[in-house]
Amino acid sequence: MPQPDHISKLGVPDPAALDEDLQAIWRKCVEKLGFVPNVYSAYSLKPQRLRHFVAMYNEIMLSGSGLSKLEREMVAVVVSSANRCYYCLVAHGAAVRMLSGDPELGEMMALNYRVAKLDARQRTILDFASKMTETPWLVEDADRDALRAVGLSENDIFDLGETVAFFNLSNRMASATDMMPNREYHRAARG
Amino acid sequence: MPQPDHISKLGVPDPAALDEDLQAIWRKCVEKLGFVPNVYSAYSLKPQRLRHFVAMYNEIMLSGSGLSKLEREMVAVVVSSANRCYYCLVAHGAAVRMLSGDPELGEMMALNYRVAKLDARQRTILDFASKMTETPWLVEDADRDALRAVGLSENDIFDLGETVAFFNLSNRMASATDMMPNREYHRAARG
Amino acid sequence: MPQPDHISKLGVPDPAALDEDLQAIWRKCVEKLGFVPNVYSAYSLKPQRLRHFVAMYNEIMLSGSGLSKLEREMVAVVVSSANRCYYCLVAHGAAVRMLSGDPELGEMMALNYRVAKLDARQRTILDFASKMTETPWLVEDADRDALRAVGLSENDIFDLGETVAFFNLSNRMASATDMMPNREYHRAARG
Amino acid sequence: MPQPDHISKLGVPDPAALDEDLQAIWRKCVEKLGFVPNVYSAYSLKPQRLRHFVAMYNEIMLSGSGLSKLEREMVAVVVSSANRCYYCLVAHGAAVRMLSGDPELGEMMALNYRVAKLDARQRTILDFASKMTETPWLVEDADRDALRAVGLSENDIFDLGETVAFFNLSNRMASATDMMPNREYHRAARG
Amino acid sequence: MPQPDHISKLGVPDPAALDEDLQAIWRKCVEKLGFVPNVYSAYSLKPQRLRHFVAMYNEIMLSGSGLSKLEREMVAVVVSSANRCYYCLVAHGAAVRMLSGDPELGEMMALNYRVAKLDARQRTILDFASKMTETPWLVEDADRDALRAVGLSENDIFDLGETVAFFNLSNRMASATDMMPNREYHRAARG
Amino acid sequence: MPQPDHISKLGVPDPAALDEDLQAIWRKCVEKLGFVPNVYSAYSLKPQRLRHFVAMYNEIMLSGSGLSKLEREMVAVVVSSANRCYYCLVAHGAAVRMLSGDPELGEMMALNYRVAKLDARQRTILDFASKMTETPWLVEDADRDALRAVGLSENDIFDLGETVAFFNLSNRMASATDMMPNREYHRAARG
Repeated sequence: MPQPDHISKLGVPDPAALDEDLQAIWRKCVEKLGFVPNVYSAYSLKPQRLRHFVAMYNEIMLSGSGLSKLEREMVAVVVSSANRCYYCLVAHGAAVRMLSGDPELGEMMALNYRVAKLDARQRTILDFASKMTETPWLVEDADRDALRAVGLSENDIFDLGETVAFFNLSNRMASATDMMPNREYHRAARG
Repeated sequence: MPQPDHISKLGVPDPAALDEDLQAIWRKCVEKLGFVPNVYSAYSLKPQRLRHFVAMYNEIMLSGSGLSKLEREMVAVVVSSANRCYYCLVAHGAAVRMLSGDPELGEMMALNYRVAKLDARQRTILDFASKMTETPWLVEDADRDALRAVGLSENDIFDLGETVAFFNLSNRMASATDMMPNREYHRAARG
Repeated sequence: MPQPDHISKLGVPDPAALDEDLQAIWRKCVEKLGFVPNVYSAYSLKPQRLRHFVAMYNEIMLSGSGLSKLEREMVAVVVSSANRCYYCLVAHGAAVRMLSGDPELGEMMALNYRVAKLDARQRTILDFASKMTETPWLVEDADRDALRAVGLSENDIFDLGETVAFFNLSNRMASATDMMPNREYHRAARG
Repeated sequence: MPQPDHISKLGVPDPAALDEDLQAIWRKCVEKLGFVPNVYSAYSLKPQRLRHFVAMYNEIMLSGSGLSKLEREMVAVVVSSANRCYYCLVAHGAAVRMLSGDPELGEMMALNYRVAKLDARQRTILDFASKMTETPWLVEDADRDALRAVGLSENDIFDLGETVAFFNLSNRMASATDMMPNREYHRAARG
Repeated sequence: MPQPDHISKLGVPDPAALDEDLQAIWRKCVEKLGFVPNVYSAYSLKPQRLRHFVAMYNEIMLSGSGLSKLEREMVAVVVSSANRCYYCLVAHGAAVRMLSGDPELGEMMALNYRVAKLDARQRTILDFASKMTETPWLVEDADRDALRAVGLSENDIFDLGETVAFFNLSNRMASATDMMPNREYHRAARG
Repeated sequence: MPQPDHISKLGVPDPAALDEDLQAIWRKCVEKLGFVPNVYSAYSLKPQRLRHFVAMYNEIMLSGSGLSKLEREMVAVVVSSANRCYYCLVAHGAAVRMLSGDPELGEMMALNYRVAKLDARQRTILDFASKMTETPWLVEDADRDALRAVGLSENDIFDLGETVAFFNLSNRMASATDMMPNREYHRAARG
């Protein structure tokens, strides 16, 4: 049962043929992570779209925010769990393990976040992420008020909303292309 | 029963205080459409995020693609219908009416696309959009093959997937902020 | 993409061959509305059934009740939205626009009533309509008590219940026959 | 655990105070069935509405049709099972037992019609009833064609559609009022 | 419409060929009930598995517990109703009728337990059974606390949990084999 | 964010106070696995029930069958994924990794089995497990025929059905008790 070695069912262009700015990203990834995340390779089928995706991703996940990087990764995994997105669960599950130093926490986020021992702020954030993902039409003032009650500012709610929204996008790109994650994620930070 | 005059429940900054590049976008919108779309105003709470959103939006909806602009707008409305997103249904429903010259088609996309008289290509595209939105974990090779059978190339499937993915993002930003559409959309292209 | 010109996929008899009492209804409709609603034409396949349908409809929607005509039309649209019934959303969406003088309110009822600025009475009525439509087996005393708390009498609750019930019937007749609404509704009361 | 002795949570008027035409119906029921069905008592809160309900009911369930009375009762029970309507399952489950002389068939319709040994015509009819009840927005030409393929005429499809539609109405009146069935139904035709 | 006379779609071995310990169970059933429950016959395809099933069943349903036998049978029926399991609804519906002496109560459990007149303890137990069956991933401390508040001990909660769990097993064995109940259950305790 | 150190929210008795036969099982587990699985500890609240659970478990998962041990573990994980059962996903996910020597396969079973590269037999088995878990009332002859077509005998179908059924039981015991898995599973067989 050797697992799939495709990256995307829509095909992946030769990285050597990519524009120089993208090749620079590729080199930086290899340097920093040891590999190029498959989402970049899959997206490189349309280089301009990759540029926008990377720019948006970096802003949402890495720029300053009232939400910690770990909180953003937990949100990523909870959204991806609702959408049962294999790629994002593997890649961002690894990120939760790494940032938290708690391998079980990563598993809990991926499998059923309700079993984790979370404080009120974390739980409220993840309940919001879950509701926004599964029944966005039911989100109302009371949901935003619950976030304010655990200390989120209006900007924090914006950031949370956009993080949830972004993974609803990327989960679907993974399903459209049957995107497979790099194997390195599986072993990372198992503790 | 005067309807809500808020744009976003997270507040909207004074446009006069925005950076010059954004003010230029505002001016261009007013010139071209007669108004600034509320999604820009709502997103201007975080200017850098607005820039990425606009760049990605323009690329997906306006750049060259094997999918026509009307097809992309039909996809936008079908996704937004599954998510019951008021903002996007109003704004992109108007776009379908305008681009098709068929006011009923816009209503059908918003209310139940299955009642429209569509050709096989359109129907297959919209069925894919619906499935990717509601049960992305069930998308498989057979779904991509159905698209190929009605003439979509690998690049077209990528573009379709990203259009669906993008509106799953924007629908959720609208729900996170309770975003209200500009009133001008309601009357546009009613025929 | 010329939209369907059928009225019902089960066929429509020649109106000139209908019994005189039905022809009188046809004439009255043309006089009052400018056209015969397609639901009458579709139902005329079985004239006696049309008579019962019209009698029940008129009693529920037009007779005296503690629920205003606008409230009843709002209920009609919210039920039809849950059932994604194209015919009823188009025809009764127009009625909400006309009776309220608020074109946006009609759209909100059709697309997601939770985004509308409603008072407690209206919201409670529509939440009841939504629950009765989607999960009637979960309706309990607490739901009726919530209606009483916003001022509905036992008779008003009966009327509300029957309005919800009736549109659950008519939505399904529309789906059984693929009933198409008259085009006049689309433009009506767009403001 | 004595079970509820209410008929409707909205109250039931004194039958002696009803108009003479309704009292005549009451007498006829007692003569024919031994009791007045509780749905009549519950509906008598609004006498004019009762008249329309009875007229429509009699036409749909008792008038001539290409669907047999047993088929119509089977449809009634399958719709009521999808909606988990206690009143209609008890009353029309009894009718299936009586008309078929097969007590198990009544139970199967109420609990899960897919376990019954049905011929292709019956199964197709009940699948249509189930789909029209649970996801009316997905009904399409193929569903009507399947009915035609097992011998239903256009008029038969109309009758089937209206039977399904009617029980979607009456199931919801039962849930709106918490209507309780007459105890006589429980023992009837147990074989 | 003669109903199915199969017991299991996977076949049933000749009882005369069963091991002596199983034949003893067969004889005891006939003596006590007048027949061998079809679940035993269906399970006898794999005798060792039958032994484990019977041992577990007897312990859960018949041994001492803070939950009465009637309560355990009500739970069995409510679980089977959520799973629409024909076999278990017929067999355990009969048990509720027998143990309660209330034929309507059995019907209510099978069709929609929310319409029954239950005390707080019973209602809380059945709500827990329903939630554990339909959305086990949402069960949390608050659900266990609600059981404690109506008097259940930790051991009682264990017993309740295992009863719910067991019928989620047996419902699925019935669906895997299309298991048909003995006809005797239908008439039992109709009152 | 130290994760929960409880084993069961209903408490766990002192193992030293258990009967000798259970203490023997405890010793055997420590010897073989290095630890006592928490499901045993949680179940020891009611020792007789533990005995039945262990006997049934061993028969289903370890005795001879036309289904391989790996196939049974894959089924365990797919069922547990549908029920989002943290305990079983962690414990049996480890078993899939161990038995297959393919760490990714374990992840795929837990997160979305449809992304795995499976042969027709495996895929058909897992589709059956998924359907039996989520909509057991829809399982019909065609589903059993699909299993026969990929080579399963009647006995194999029985074994498959009981494996699916058993994990629908154990998933629910885990949710009833908020059972936490032993930490050893997380690191096992990560490759």
